[in-house]
Amino acid sequence: MSWDNSAASIATLLTLDDISKAAQEPPKPGATTPVLALSAQARTKGYDLVCLPLTTDKWKKRWEEMCILPNGTDLDADMAAERRAEAWRAKPGFLLDEVTITQLEEAEGATVLISDWLELDAADDWVRHDAEIALKQELAYASYLNIHSAILPPPRSREYVSSYARTVNACLKNSPYMHLSIRLPIYNPSVLEAHLSPLPGSPRRSPSPVPGTPRLIVPDERGTETASGNLDGTWEMWDVIRSICDYSTRLTLTLDLTPPLPVKSGFLSKWKAEAIRHLFLPSSTFIANTKGYPVLPKGTQSFIRESMTHRPVVILAGANLGLHSLGGELAYSQYLRHLEKTSPAVQAALTSGTVENFAQGYQDYLQAPLQPLMDNLQSVTYQTFEQDPVKYHNYEEAIFQALVDWPHQDKIVLCVAGAGRGPLVARSISAIDRSGRDAVVYAVEKNPNAYVTLQGRKEAEWGPKVTLLFGDMRFIDVPEQADILISELLGSFGDNELSPECLDGAMRFLKSDGISIPSSYTAHLAPLQSSKLYNEARAGKEEKSVETPYVVMFQAVNLLSGDGGGTNGRCGPQIQECWEFEHPRRDAVLNERGLPLTNSHNARSAKLDFSIPHAGVLHGLAGYFEAVLYGNIGLSIHPHRKDRISKDMLSWFPLFFPFKEPLYLPSNSELQVSIWRLTNERQVWYEWHAEAFMNLVAPPPENDIPASPRSATSFANGGSFFASPPRNIPSPLIDANGDAFSFDRRSSLREPVDAGSRLIKIGHTSLHNPGGRSSWIGL
Amino acid sequence: MSWDNSAASIATLLTLDDISKAAQEPPKPGATTPVLALSAQARTKGYDLVCLPLTTDKWKKRWEEMCILPNGTDLDADMAAERRAEAWRAKPGFLLDEVTITQLEEAEGATVLISDWLELDAADDWVRHDAEIALKQELAYASYLNIHSAILPPPRSREYVSSYARTVNACLKNSPYMHLSIRLPIYNPSVLEAHLSPLPGSPRRSPSPVPGTPRLIVPDERGTETASGNLDGTWEMWDVIRSICDYSTRLTLTLDLTPPLPVKSGFLSKWKAEAIRHLFLPSSTFIANTKGYPVLPKGTQSFIRESMTHRPVVILAGANLGLHSLGGELAYSQYLRHLEKTSPAVQAALTSGTVENFAQGYQDYLQAPLQPLMDNLQSVTYQTFEQDPVKYHNYEEAIFQALVDWPHQDKIVLCVAGAGRGPLVARSISAIDRSGRDAVVYAVEKNPNAYVTLQGRKEAEWGPKVTLLFGDMRFIDVPEQADILISELLGSFGDNELSPECLDGAMRFLKSDGISIPSSYTAHLAPLQSSKLYNEARAGKEEKSVETPYVVMFQAVNLLSGDGGGTNGRCGPQIQECWEFEHPRRDAVLNERGLPLTNSHNARSAKLDFSIPHAGVLHGLAGYFEAVLYGNIGLSIHPHRKDRISKDMLSWFPLFFPFKEPLYLPSNSELQVSIWRLTNERQVWYEWHAEAFMNLVAPPPENDIPASPRSATSFANGGSFFASPPRNIPSPLIDANGDAFSFDRRSSLREPVDAGSRLIKIGHTSLHNPGGRSSWIGL
Repeated sequence: MSWDNSAASIATLLTLDDISKAAQEPPKPGATTPVLALSAQARTKGYDLVCLPLTTDKWKKRWEEMCILPNGTDLDADMAAERRAEAWRAKPGFLLDEVTITQLEEAEGATVLISDWLELDAADDWVRHDAEIALKQELAYASYLNIHSAILPPPRSREYVSSYARTVNACLKNSPYMHLSIRLPIYNPSVLEAHLSPLPGSPRRSPSPVPGTPRLIVPDERGTETASGNLDGTWEMWDVIRSICDYSTRLTLTLDLTPPLPVKSGFLSKWKAEAIRHLFLPSSTFIANTKGYPVLPKGTQSFIRESMTHRPVVILAGANLGLHSLGGELAYSQYLRHLEKTSPAVQAALTSGTVENFAQGYQDYLQAPLQPLMDNLQSVTYQTFEQDPVKYHNYEEAIFQALVDWPHQDKIVLCVAGAGRGPLVARSISAIDRSGRDAVVYAVEKNPNAYVTLQGRKEAEWGPKVTLLFGDMRFIDVPEQADILISELLGSFGDNELSPECLDGAMRFLKSDGISIPSSYTAHLAPLQSSKLYNEARAGKEEKSVETPYVVMFQAVNLLSGDGGGTNGRCGPQIQECWEFEHPRRDAVLNERGLPLTNSHNARSAKLDFSIPHAGVLHGLAGYFEAVLYGNIGLSIHPHRKDRISKDMLSWFPLFFPFKEPLYLPSNSELQVSIWRLTNERQVWYEWHAEAFMNLVAPPPENDIPASPRSATSFANGGSFFASPPRNIPSPLIDANGDAFSFDRRSSLREPVDAGSRLIKIGHTSLHNPGGRSSWIGL
Repeated sequence: MSWDNSAASIATLLTLDDISKAAQEPPKPGATTPVLALSAQARTKGYDLVCLPLTTDKWKKRWEEMCILPNGTDLDADMAAERRAEAWRAKPGFLLDEVTITQLEEAEGATVLISDWLELDAADDWVRHDAEIALKQELAYASYLNIHSAILPPPRSREYVSSYARTVNACLKNSPYMHLSIRLPIYNPSVLEAHLSPLPGSPRRSPSPVPGTPRLIVPDERGTETASGNLDGTWEMWDVIRSICDYSTRLTLTLDLTPPLPVKSGFLSKWKAEAIRHLFLPSSTFIANTKGYPVLPKGTQSFIRESMTHRPVVILAGANLGLHSLGGELAYSQYLRHLEKTSPAVQAALTSGTVENFAQGYQDYLQAPLQPLMDNLQSVTYQTFEQDPVKYHNYEEAIFQALVDWPHQDKIVLCVAGAGRGPLVARSISAIDRSGRDAVVYAVEKNPNAYVTLQGRKEAEWGPKVTLLFGDMRFIDVPEQADILISELLGSFGDNELSPECLDGAMRFLKSDGISIPSSYTAHLAPLQSSKLYNEARAGKEEKSVETPYVVMFQAVNLLSGDGGGTNGRCGPQIQECWEFEHPRRDAVLNERGLPLTNSHNARSAKLDFSIPHAGVLHGLAGYFEAVLYGNIGLSIHPHRKDRISKDMLSWFPLFFPFKEPLYLPSNSELQVSIWRLTNERQVWYEWHAEAFMNLVAPPPENDIPASPRSATSFANGGSFFASPPRNIPSPLIDANGDAFSFDRRSSLREPVDAGSRLIKIGHTSLHNPGGRSSWIGL
C-alpha cells in the first residue's frame, strides 16, 4: 500500500432535502437530474465521493400503510392492507417516485444509505419480517444500478441484534457483489451523558442535530442494559453482527463519530482492529476555534488521525448548513485534509528510515517465517536484511565492546557462526580495527551459494585476517577455539529460527571462558485482536493455516491486555516474557563430540496471566523478542522498549500466533495463555492455548476453604493418596439406611455454593499446532 | 445395543502388594507368574476383568534418582544423575524388575494403571518434561504387550492442567491404538469437607484409605481455587483435558467414586453426558448395612444405577481387605450386580412397550429427519410408525370426541389428509362406529405406492364409506368440503415436516366452521450437553453435518438449563416453547385458488433465555413438540409432560440441533438462544444461534442510567435521529483548545464504568445453517 495518494477519501452526504431543492432549480447543462447536478457540484467542491439515501419518503409511507396495521379499528381496512402487503411480499418492487436515483450515471461511484426507518431488530416478528423484505428489495435495486456499497441503518436494541445480524447475513449471501456497511455510533452517547454533569462553560443545548445522524440506541425493553448501557455496547453489537456474518470481508463498519470522544480511553482502541470503511461525521460535531472556523474536539481529532491506517471514506454531513460562522462549506474538508497530513501513521510512512516506510505493502500481510537452517536463503533475502543499519550498528558496537573488555593481551579469536553473505564479518573487522586489538575471524557458513559470495569478499575486502569454513556449525570441525562467538540466528520470537540448537553445536568451538554475542534472548507475548489477521489466517488454502505462526507487520490490530495486575493482582504487564535462552550454557551434559545428548534443555513453557480491561475478541497472540548482544547493547522489537534499544531496526516484524476460533473476552476479564516450545530429535515447534476467566466480585463465603499448602515433599510422595483422608467417609458401622448419609436433607448441600472461588472460567480456545502438525522447524 | 448381556463389567484391582504376596506362594499349575495366578483367581471369583499397575516401586526409585536432583548439595552427584537422565531421555526404557508384567498372556484383557506418581502437571518444567517421557515410555511398553486401555493418574492442580492435557494429547497421537482414561474424583472432597461439620454419629476418622484411591487435588499455589475450590472443579479439569485433546474418542473418564455423593444434586448430572469408561470404587466407600454387609451410600447407589447407560467397567479396589464384617470379598460385586438389575435404564430397556425397549440400538444415534413431502416413504417406514399404539389410540379418541361434539345432525364429512397406508382411516371408521354418527371419510394421499395399499384396504376392509383421492393435498380438488380434517404431518419439532404448509393447502376443502385434528402444535427447546452427540455430528463426512438437525433418541445427554428464573428472574423454565401453529387459520389472505399468496405467515422466530445453574458445555439444542389433537387429547414428547399426555408413545425421538463449536457455560450463567423458522417460495429451514451471559452481582453504580422507555411511536418515527440530542456536544462557540473538552482530565472518564450493566456477555456460537445451506425442507 502506497501513501503517495491520500489516505482518506471525503464524501458528502446528499439529503432528501438537498435533492428536492435541486429539483426546483433549472436543469444544468450535462446534469439532467437533480442528483447528477448535485454530484457535479460535489466534485467541484473537491469531494471525492457522494453518499445519498436510496429511497424517498413516499416509499416509507407506502411500506407503513401496508405493513403497520392500525390495530383492529377497521377490520376491512386491515384486510385490504394485508392483501396489498401479501401482494408486495410475493413480488417486492418500487414505484418510480419511491427512489432517489434511476440512472446508471447517477449511481456511478455513489454509496447509498438504505432506508433508515427499517427496523431489522424490531421486537415484532412481522415488522422484522417485512423490514427484511424491504431491505432485500432496496439492495436488489441498488445492485441493478451497479452500486457496490450500501450503508445499513444502525441496530437499535441489543435484545434483537441477533435477528438484525441474521438478516444482514442473508443479504450478504443474496447480493454477492454488494459491500454492506453497518452504521454504528462509536459508543452510545446516553451512557456518557449519564455520567457527566454539564461541563463548565458549556451550554445545555447543542446545535440541532444534522439529519442523517443516528438515532439513539434505546435500552432493551426488559430493562437489561447489557450492551446499550456501557461504553463497549455498540462494539458488542458489532461483534455479534460480524460474528453471525462469519467475518465476511464484504461487511464493514460505518463508524458514526457524532458523539464527542474522550482524548484517551482504552475502550476506543478496539475499533482500530475492526473493518472500518466509513467515518460518519456531521457538521454539528465540529466546534468553532477562537476564530470561528470549524475544528473537531481533541478526542475526535486524534481518533480520525489514528484511523487513517484504514484509508477510510469520511462522510461529511450537513457541511452546507452553515453551522459555523467562518470558512464556509469547504472549511470542513480542508480541516479533514489537515488531520490526514498530521496523522502519525501517514507521517511515519512518508519518513524514510522508519519501519513503516520500509514495510509499505506488508502491513497485516502474513508471511511464513524463514527456516534458514532447513532452507538455503536466496541472495536477495540476505540483501534485504543487510539493509538494516541499526541491527548491524548494534552488532558492531557489541563486538567492539567485547574486544575492548577482553582481558587477555594475546591474539583474540572471533568466530562468526552463520556468516551468510558476510555482514557480521565486515562489522567484526571494523570493530577489530577500531579496538586496535589483535584478532582473527573465522567465518562458518553452511549455505554453499552464500559461501561463493564470502569467497569473493575475502578475496576483495578481507584478506588473511578472515578464514572461511564451509559447513554446518553443529557438525563442522574448526581449527581453533574461539574467544568470541558471533551469530545472527534470531527470529521474531527469538528462538524460532533454532538459534538455541545451532549455538549448542557451535559451543564446541567456543573456549570455556569465551563469550557469545548474543549472550541471551527472551520471547514475549501479548493477546491480540484483529479481524483482518483472523480473516487472513483462515483465508490460507489449507485448514492448517490457522495453526501456523506468521511474521506480520501489525497495523489493524489491538493488544487486548492491560498493564495493571487485573482485579486481583495476579496478572503481569501488557506484554509478558515467556522464556529466556542464555549462551554459553555452563551446566551442559555433552557426548564425546561435545554435543548435548538430547534437546530436552531447549524445551520451554510459559503460562501467562493477562488482565483484559475492555471487552474484545481474542484472535491471536503477538510474539516479540529481545536480545542482549553484549553488556547493555541489545536488539528489541518489544513495542514498549524497541525505541530505547534499537530504534528504527527493520529486520524483524512480530510473530502472529493465530487462534482458529475467536474467543470473546468481557471487560475486566483475565486471559491465561499457555505456550510450549517442544522438541523431539528432528523438530522444534510451538503449541499454544488460552483460557478466559472472570473475577467474581461477590463477597467470600462464610467458611472459606483454608488453602492447604502444597506439601514440599508432595512430589516425591507418590504412594500416599488423599494427603489427609476425607473426613466424611463414614465408618462401615453406620447403617446405610440411616439419616447420617442422606445428603438430600441437608439444604446446604442441595445447592452447593462455590465456596472460596474467585476466578470463574468462562471459555477457552482449542490447543493449536499439537505435535507440530501444522508447523515445525527442522533440526 | 442389546441389554441381554449385563450392562456393567466388574474388574478387580490387583495391587503391588497382591502381586508380591502371590509371588511368595508356590506356583500353581498353568499359572507360571504371580499375575497369571491372580488373574485366574479373579476369574474364579467372578470378576470380568483385571486392572493392575504397570510399574513397580523400583521404577519410581530409579526415575526419582535420575530426575529429581537433590538441589546442589553434591555437584558431582548431580552431574552424574543428570548424565544418567540424559541417557535415559535419549533412549527411554525399563529394566525387568521395574514392570509388573512381561508376557502377552499376563496382559490379555488387562487394563493397566500408569504410574500414579507421574506429575504431568507439576509446576516445575523439568519434572513435567521427564514425567512426559516416562508416560510415553509406559504407554509404549503397554502397547508392546498388546494392551489397549491405560488409566492415567489424576491431574493435581488446576494451574497446570493445560500442560497435563497437552501431554495426554501428545500420547494419544503417539499411541494410535491405545485408549487412555483419565482418573478423576467425581468432585474434590475437600470442598465438601469444608462445608460439613462432622455428621452426627459419624466418627471423625474413616477406615484407612485403600491403596489406589486418588490423591487430593491441592489448591493452586497462587491461592486461586478456581476449579479445585468448587464442586464442579474436577469436571472443569476434565473439560480442559478433553477439549485440548479435541474430544478424542480414545479418551475416556475413570470416575473415582471414593468421596461420598449427595443423593440428588445438579452438579452430578453433567457427568451423564461425558465419556465414562470406568468407575473406580474402593471398598472403603462401602458402608455396612444393619446386618454388616457392605452397601453403598444412597447417593453413590443412584449414581451407579444411572451410570449403567454407559456400560461401565466398575473397578473394585480393596475388596479383599476385609473392611466389612459380613459377606466376604464376593459381597461387593454381588451388591453391584444388584444395583445393575435395579437400574431404571436397564429395567426400562427390558420392559416391552417402552420407548427404551423399542429404540434399542438407536440411543444417541443421529438420523436425518424424514422429508415425507419431498420423498415418498417406503412401506416399511409406514409399518414402523403404525406400530405406535399410543399415538393412534389418541387420534381415535380425538376423532371420537370431535364426532360426539359435532353439533349438526346430518352427515359428517371427515377427510384424512395424507392417509399413508391408512391407519388414520381405520381409526376414523372405528371412531365413527363408536360414536354412532353418520359420517363418510375422504382419504387423500400423494404417494402412488401407498395409494395401492389404500385401494387394497378399501376393497378388503372399508367399503363405500371411504373415498380415496390421489394427489397432493395442496393442489388436489376434493368433491366436497370436510367438517373434520385429520392429518398426521408432525415431526419431532412439530412443524419440521411442513405440516403448516401442507395444511394451508388442505384448508381449501375444510368448511369455514370445520375443525382440524390436530388443532395446534408447539415447538420446544432446551440447551444440551453431550460429548457423544458432538462427536457424532462432526463425524459426518461433510463439514455441513454439524449444521443439520437430527432425530436422536437421547441417552448420554444432560440438559444444561435450570428451572428457575436465573439470578435476575429473566429466564424461563428448563424447556421452553418457541412458537405455535394453529389450524385452521381464520385471518388468511388467499388467492383465487384458496391458497396463501406467500408463506410469510409460517415464518417464526423465538428468543429464549435459559438459566444455567451448573457449569457445562453447550453442544446443541434439544427440540421437542407438543400437539393438541382435539379438546384435551394430545401428543407430546416434552420430557416433563409426555407421560401425562401420551405415555409410551414411540413415533418420535427428539430433534437435535448441533453447534459446531462447544460453548463453555459457567455456573449461574444465562444462555440466550435465538432460533428462526425461515421460508422462501421453495424451502423452509431453521437457523440457530446462542449467546452466553454472566450476571455481574456488583452493587449498582451510584448514577444508574434511567431506562428511557421505548417510545410507542419510535417505529414509525423514522426520520428523527437522536430521540433526545446528546447534551454534551458543545456549542460551536467554545474554543476547541479549551479545557472544556479535554476529557483526559476527567478521571471518571478515563476508566469508564459499566454503569447499569448487570448481564455481561461472555461468549457466543456462530450462526448455524444460514440460508438453509446445510439443511432445508422442500415445499
